[in-house]
Amino acid sequence: MTITLGANRYGKAETRVVRVTRDGETHRIKDLNVSISLSGDMDAVHLSGDNSAVLPTDTQKNTVFAFARKHGIGEIEEFGLLLARHFVTSQPTIRHARVEIEEYAWERVGDGGHSFVRSGREVRTALVHSDGPDGPESVVSGLKDLLVLNSTGSEFHGFIRDEYTTLEPTRDRILATAVTARWRHRGVDAAWGASYERARRCLLEAFAGTHSLSLQQTLYQMGRRVLEECAEICEVRLSLPNKHHFAVDLTPFGMDNDNEVFFAADRPYGLIEGTVLDDEAPAAPEAWN
Amino acid sequence: MTITLGANRYGKAETRVVRVTRDGETHRIKDLNVSISLSGDMDAVHLSGDNSAVLPTDTQKNTVFAFARKHGIGEIEEFGLLLARHFVTSQPTIRHARVEIEEYAWERVGDGGHSFVRSGREVRTALVHSDGPDGPESVVSGLKDLLVLNSTGSEFHGFIRDEYTTLEPTRDRILATAVTARWRHRGVDAAWGASYERARRCLLEAFAGTHSLSLQQTLYQMGRRVLEECAEICEVRLSLPNKHHFAVDLTPFGMDNDNEVFFAADRPYGLIEGTVLDDEAPAAPEAWN
Amino acid sequence: MTITLGANRYGKAETRVVRVTRDGETHRIKDLNVSISLSGDMDAVHLSGDNSAVLPTDTQKNTVFAFARKHGIGEIEEFGLLLARHFVTSQPTIRHARVEIEEYAWERVGDGGHSFVRSGREVRTALVHSDGPDGPESVVSGLKDLLVLNSTGSEFHGFIRDEYTTLEPTRDRILATAVTARWRHRGVDAAWGASYERARRCLLEAFAGTHSLSLQQTLYQMGRRVLEECAEICEVRLSLPNKHHFAVDLTPFGMDNDNEVFFAADRPYGLIEGTVLDDEAPAAPEAWN
Amino acid sequence: MTITLGANRYGKAETRVVRVTRDGETHRIKDLNVSISLSGDMDAVHLSGDNSAVLPTDTQKNTVFAFARKHGIGEIEEFGLLLARHFVTSQPTIRHARVEIEEYAWERVGDGGHSFVRSGREVRTALVHSDGPDGPESVVSGLKDLLVLNSTGSEFHGFIRDEYTTLEPTRDRILATAVTARWRHRGVDAAWGASYERARRCLLEAFAGTHSLSLQQTLYQMGRRVLEECAEICEVRLSLPNKHHFAVDLTPFGMDNDNEVFFAADRPYGLIEGTVLDDEAPAAPEAWN
Repeated sequence: MTITLGANRYGKAETRVVRVTRDGETHRIKDLNVSISLSGDMDAVHLSGDNSAVLPTDTQKNTVFAFARKHGIGEIEEFGLLLARHFVTSQPTIRHARVEIEEYAWERVGDGGHSFVRSGREVRTALVHSDGPDGPESVVSGLKDLLVLNSTGSEFHGFIRDEYTTLEPTRDRILATAVTARWRHRGVDAAWGASYERARRCLLEAFAGTHSLSLQQTLYQMGRRVLEECAEICEVRLSLPNKHHFAVDLTPFGMDNDNEVFFAADRPYGLIEGTVLDDEAPAAPEAWN
Repeated sequence: MTITLGANRYGKAETRVVRVTRDGETHRIKDLNVSISLSGDMDAVHLSGDNSAVLPTDTQKNTVFAFARKHGIGEIEEFGLLLARHFVTSQPTIRHARVEIEEYAWERVGDGGHSFVRSGREVRTALVHSDGPDGPESVVSGLKDLLVLNSTGSEFHGFIRDEYTTLEPTRDRILATAVTARWRHRGVDAAWGASYERARRCLLEAFAGTHSLSLQQTLYQMGRRVLEECAEICEVRLSLPNKHHFAVDLTPFGMDNDNEVFFAADRPYGLIEGTVLDDEAPAAPEAWN
Repeated sequence: MTITLGANRYGKAETRVVRVTRDGETHRIKDLNVSISLSGDMDAVHLSGDNSAVLPTDTQKNTVFAFARKHGIGEIEEFGLLLARHFVTSQPTIRHARVEIEEYAWERVGDGGHSFVRSGREVRTALVHSDGPDGPESVVSGLKDLLVLNSTGSEFHGFIRDEYTTLEPTRDRILATAVTARWRHRGVDAAWGASYERARRCLLEAFAGTHSLSLQQTLYQMGRRVLEECAEICEVRLSLPNKHHFAVDLTPFGMDNDNEVFFAADRPYGLIEGTVLDDEAPAAPEAWN
Repeated sequence: MTITLGANRYGKAETRVVRVTRDGETHRIKDLNVSISLSGDMDAVHLSGDNSAVLPTDTQKNTVFAFARKHGIGEIEEFGLLLARHFVTSQPTIRHARVEIEEYAWERVGDGGHSFVRSGREVRTALVHSDGPDGPESVVSGLKDLLVLNSTGSEFHGFIRDEYTTLEPTRDRILATAVTARWRHRGVDAAWGASYERARRCLLEAFAGTHSLSLQQTLYQMGRRVLEECAEICEVRLSLPNKHHFAVDLTPFGMDNDNEVFFAADRPYGLIEGTVLDDEAPAAPEAWN
């Protein structure tokens, strides 16, 4: 046996930065949660506690705040790239940087120009990897906590029946899920904001527009729609919990229930995960780790 | 010492019911979380386990589903009243019923009429108490998880300074909170939907429109606005966590920070709680318990 | 209509303080979450934003840390009393102080005297109210998140059956709950640590030792046992979710299920709340608010 | 562009099963959360909604319950293997099965033999992969939510200082983390229970016994100790959040603070992730996905 240090990384997770930009009386705000992971020549710190290759996670946090001041915060993909490139270019011991950002949306309220209400449930995400100007770089955009529901237009039948199968086939059910989606861009310079809106729209339209025979089919249509309409995107990964809504049996009370009253269950739930990609695009495993 | 049974209640908590209503191809959905508490002649069950006065919590759950089918689900205050009155009138042992409902909002997406996306972060609430047709009844409406932020227009100074005070007075800070509000109606028949929209608007407008010298001042203005503009409401209770946003000290990096970059802290947080009421309205402690 | 400020309070919530005490190489740690609520002459701050009666919540946080240094942290009831009395006696505008503390338990690990592992799931709690040396004072101790389960010895039958009742009576079921308990002390000086251990033991023994015909009966026995064995305690309040474990129907697979395989459900759940008290002890509503 | 279905899997997540075994009056309980993921010939279901290769997730849930009855529940690694092998051998369309199990620990309370209290905060985990009797199989055991703290014996200095670095070097700090650990077994038949206890003890002893110059060093020692003392284990993966405890500056109050009073911060936190492995053991990427 040869005990060895394998893959490792470290960084500051969940730095909560809010950036206010003023245009006279009118303010804009960006509200982010930034997580950084760095890796490189880190054998010494693991084997002997020699920190000479380690940029403290406290410094990483400071850098987030300083960059927010210096560069402002535009699209999260850009801000992630700025940070990731900074770390891999400023320290020779740091070979790979990974920046993950969550953005919380706010919309204006009132007339004063400086009041906001948090909007929507969904969180916009970005995951940026950089090995520096010469090394591979990648941008994965995404969203999570987007809850969607079709109250009809969903069937499930024709499945395997084994000795433990009791599920009845159905021609009409509620289909509901909380979408987590990530999509890889072909390059590292896109119109991030417009691209996000387009991808989000595709996901919603495909979910709503697909007459579904299985959640897998819906998943595939959602990924495919993004690829078809967003030329800048080459790979989509989706994770879709099947949030079961069971039609309640009301016959004991002398009532029928033609898919009108449902019990929304918490656990267990189905979980469907899948990737839809342009097979001609080069693979980029480091974009996703 | 005389060991005695004191106040008690029991019920089924968090029944998650989704109701679909169809108008041809166009569906409407209501998505609720219903919690029921009953009390009355319950000495025997506590003292000896004699359940003859106990309507099972399982039955309460069934009743939620059956009523959703039978009566549909309109405004949550109405649905709460229906349920509460049912329990106190159908069983002589049940003297008091309390129904608490959370409603999750959905908005339409797509063209099919049956697709929805969960909207907003706020949850609408209702708390209904009924002692039956002759006894007192009350309806408290409300909301929670409504996140709001003013990026300026907030000061804090002139406070007590003791030996443990290090806080600097400020003439400009971010003021942010997650509003939990409950408001008591004067009667038990209002235009619940319109009333909710009006009260919500008052809370937002007062938050946005108040130049704030303290979160307490903002709280009072929020409650007052609701009372002034909603004749049907006689009491407002607010719980406002002061979600601190600290301006980051960037001077070590040679940068100023004129309220542009903030750290959004989790804990500790200030917590401001207060009631604003029409002093002439009769008190109703049972409405809130 | 006369718009009036009603009940109100404010303070710093959830200050997370860890106190290390060293006895040579051997350390002890106390790990608390402290929440403070103050009230008194607070009309001006609400009505006009005049903060001259307001001790900042930031100062309250500082006081927690300074007191942890100055007085150490012994039992949480003591630490709560120290803090509460400080606020009401040092500021004339502050009439009432409420200090709520959660304590997280740690046990030693290793030989070095300075290593610890977080133990148990339960959280010990204290809720202290003080109006100052002359005014009423009270101490409520408690615990939460204490999960207990009886795999037999629980029945449920003889309940009301109405048109919505489908539940079958049972002579054997799992009874499981997550205990939240609070108990009021007769005075404000007890052997807090020993009292806590005794009350906790009573709750566990009564839960385990009661052949239960309903969770209400078990609740009453738990409260009664505490009162019987803890002379220093005069009132017990319990909140017991009935964490349903449903025996799975395995007949479709040709198997019986004599209470061997259960599905542990999340929602909905029964919720049983009740008070057991010494009827001769004076009431103390302010102890609980 | 060729739009293609990439990696995918599906299954029933979070089936909460509780198994009671009776030895006369003395009961034993196992409390698990079981998540299943299957993959194989699933093109048709994604591309056209043809479910003929799909074993419903509902059936997977039923199988968990039926197997709990039929085989009982021993060690979670065994139960995971039973389930995983069942799915890949009984359905030709299912090529790969992944079973992830969490186990919650209970200990006895009272004298009756059927009462239990949930113990500890840590959750024991297992992740089993099977391609069937001939294909690769693997077992990864682990734990999560194991909170540990050293109140001294931790330093951090000698790190990189760049223009954004303000952190002061320290020779004494609190080191605290919530351990998530997973370890891969060399084979698929070990004495799982004894192995778990040994690995857990190694993690605790290495954490407590390492005078730490960085959390990375502690991580490496923890992984190394497991490999050294557990011949059956060939790879350890650790994820250690650095749960910062900041010594509070009490000088404004005329007090020193020689590492006695700390503020336990929530976010941001450092996050240290790393692998320690026997370099001679064959890689098994499918064991971890």
